[in-house]
Amino acid sequence: MKHFCEMNHDELMEQYKLASADFERCKQMELHLDMSRGKPSKAQLELSMGLLDMPLDILTDYMSDNIDSRNYGTLEGLPECRRMFADILGVKPEQVFAGGNASLTLMYDTISKAFTHGLLHSEMPWSKREKVKFICPAPGYDRHFAICKTFGIEMITVDMTPDGPDMDTVEKLILDEDVRGMWCVPKYSNPDGIIYSHDTIRRIASMKPAASDFLLMWDNAYCVHEFDGEFVEFEDILSECEKYGNKDMVFEYCSTSKITFPGAGVACFACSEDNMAYMKKLIGVQSISFDKMNQLRHTRFLKDRAHTIEHMKKHAAIMKPKFDTVIEYLDREIAPCGFARWHKPTGGYFISLYTMDGCAKRTHALCKEAGVVLTAAGATYPYGNDPHDSNMRIAPSLPPIEELRSAMGVLCVCLRLAALEKLLRIG
Amino acid sequence: MKHFCEMNHDELMEQYKLASADFERCKQMELHLDMSRGKPSKAQLELSMGLLDMPLDILTDYMSDNIDSRNYGTLEGLPECRRMFADILGVKPEQVFAGGNASLTLMYDTISKAFTHGLLHSEMPWSKREKVKFICPAPGYDRHFAICKTFGIEMITVDMTPDGPDMDTVEKLILDEDVRGMWCVPKYSNPDGIIYSHDTIRRIASMKPAASDFLLMWDNAYCVHEFDGEFVEFEDILSECEKYGNKDMVFEYCSTSKITFPGAGVACFACSEDNMAYMKKLIGVQSISFDKMNQLRHTRFLKDRAHTIEHMKKHAAIMKPKFDTVIEYLDREIAPCGFARWHKPTGGYFISLYTMDGCAKRTHALCKEAGVVLTAAGATYPYGNDPHDSNMRIAPSLPPIEELRSAMGVLCVCLRLAALEKLLRIG
Repeated sequence: MKHFCEMNHDELMEQYKLASADFERCKQMELHLDMSRGKPSKAQLELSMGLLDMPLDILTDYMSDNIDSRNYGTLEGLPECRRMFADILGVKPEQVFAGGNASLTLMYDTISKAFTHGLLHSEMPWSKREKVKFICPAPGYDRHFAICKTFGIEMITVDMTPDGPDMDTVEKLILDEDVRGMWCVPKYSNPDGIIYSHDTIRRIASMKPAASDFLLMWDNAYCVHEFDGEFVEFEDILSECEKYGNKDMVFEYCSTSKITFPGAGVACFACSEDNMAYMKKLIGVQSISFDKMNQLRHTRFLKDRAHTIEHMKKHAAIMKPKFDTVIEYLDREIAPCGFARWHKPTGGYFISLYTMDGCAKRTHALCKEAGVVLTAAGATYPYGNDPHDSNMRIAPSLPPIEELRSAMGVLCVCLRLAALEKLLRIG
Repeated sequence: MKHFCEMNHDELMEQYKLASADFERCKQMELHLDMSRGKPSKAQLELSMGLLDMPLDILTDYMSDNIDSRNYGTLEGLPECRRMFADILGVKPEQVFAGGNASLTLMYDTISKAFTHGLLHSEMPWSKREKVKFICPAPGYDRHFAICKTFGIEMITVDMTPDGPDMDTVEKLILDEDVRGMWCVPKYSNPDGIIYSHDTIRRIASMKPAASDFLLMWDNAYCVHEFDGEFVEFEDILSECEKYGNKDMVFEYCSTSKITFPGAGVACFACSEDNMAYMKKLIGVQSISFDKMNQLRHTRFLKDRAHTIEHMKKHAAIMKPKFDTVIEYLDREIAPCGFARWHKPTGGYFISLYTMDGCAKRTHALCKEAGVVLTAAGATYPYGNDPHDSNMRIAPSLPPIEELRSAMGVLCVCLRLAALEKLLRIG
């Protein structure tokens, strides 16, 4: 089959008629499928039921390093939980703050405190500043952008490359004193699934921003989330930053949300000891302590990095066939038409699909009409504004594989139809 | 025995020598006791172990109103958890936001959002204002005052009366547009153990503050926490406020921290439907959802108001003898000396003791020297400034009763010694 761009008008019209008929058939299936978020499936949730039916002699052993997990106290989290996260992230236990159920909340709170109190090296709280700007590699995570938006932070879109954010641009942007932070998802980036290269990480860690309190938001959400192949080692960003005199520049985040139960797991941040002391003073007003019983449950269940990686292989066994299905459909139905490209990640939660420029919103709308809800087109860009209206985020984790097949069938039809409408200037 | 104030110099010197000798004996006991915080005892924690060894057929029944408690979603909390808190507080389920592990965090976050975003009826975020003042009935809860301090809120101390805050003063203060909020612990107030009278509650609910976004912080921390006698009904402050056209003025808070596990329970806030819609929009950026598994555990364990009140009777059986012990010591050792007074609460976590003016700090220091740590003198007042240096907060819940007896023995000696030093102008 010829690529669409090589077809003449009649050939395109022929394809358009086929696609339109396919689309009508899709609608008649009356599907109601949701692939909008990276939500684990029921089968994945079953993997952590051991959290609940833990033998009583373990669960009632609530003393941990001489701390009663059931009572108030130990703001920074159970030492055994901090040790576990330190092992996973390759940092020191004293650099870990084990908190509540969500890294998103910890990230929001860090930025909120920058606004209300300022960070360790701030001259003033950000709320007193005319302007605060953040570097937002895109496509990226819509919830990061939503945090910027809610605080009125001006977002500067920087392109992603196969090695991570375009550092030539970043290195120029940080010379602006108003640029006070940057979002990063360094491993299996959301949505591209890119692992930042060593060189990119070195360039990030060695940045010399004009702002004294520049905040590197290192969201290591998918640090142990391979679904294809062996565990991929990653760099300890805290040591990297320290090496270049930037030890207080970075806050790293992760959680067990996609390891055990989403929203009922344990989240942490890791930072320099000076940042830790500073944040503990501020957080101590907000909380007496986080849920240490849940921290206990999780450390007894996940134990350490090695054991967590073993556990993640069970997730991988469920996830891989789903990602394979998405790629199989795209390879079979779309590749021959030549108007779209996509990443083939080996970890994380998403497949990033780039359709013909100006077709993402339309494809999304067509899918919705046919009962398949995808992440809103544009959501992966600051202000929901994809300059090319091209990127689509596919989240295959939630639906059972049969539903995923139906959804992918619909998506491929809609991709073709939207591209043909564009080429034929229809609509 | 004569009251100290009726004694002549020689009689006081005689008492001083006795007290000094007693104090030396106290020091020789080499105690290390902590009564500084309202921390439940191990015996109380044992009451909720049922949360852990819940039968598996209940705990694995993770579906709740068709929501999978193990997965992301349902920001405002499980419906069954909202219904339980609504029953306890006497409000409507749709007025309840069931959150994470700490009402302190919810309170901090409400005020933080007032600063970063403004409240529903704010003309601007509080961070843009010259000045924000709060009414702080005192003695009060030190962590409320700490929240004010961290946000730079000017605290205005208002006296507590046996009926609650001095409303004559409050009604004048709210005419100042800079006065934007007020802290209240309406039932078993911290530390006095006072229950606000109906008239006080009516006057609070019907306030006409100058500030359009006046924030009534209704910390109902001890709503079901009687340790002596039957459950005392309390008014639904939301309906009360609505009755006077103030439905959006109030946020009510409570948690299970002193019902099940401190720091590992579930907290909630209750507010008008309009406030709920407004706050959900803001909180939705900070969190996808709170720990619904813990919400599920708690609703299955505590069930409803009636069952929770039954459960609280078990706490009462442990708490009452401790409060009786404190009162017994004060009645026996201090009452005859006539220089101090105290409340005899029937619920809550504290006994509020008023020693001779100018003696609280000294008594605290003497106790510390003898190995008994009490809540810092002054902590119950804004800026740690007790104008009379008189109030001391006794928190008898944590120590086993034998330790409590030792601690009370020491406290009574220190109270006498500090009062005698003052009367004799020693030191």
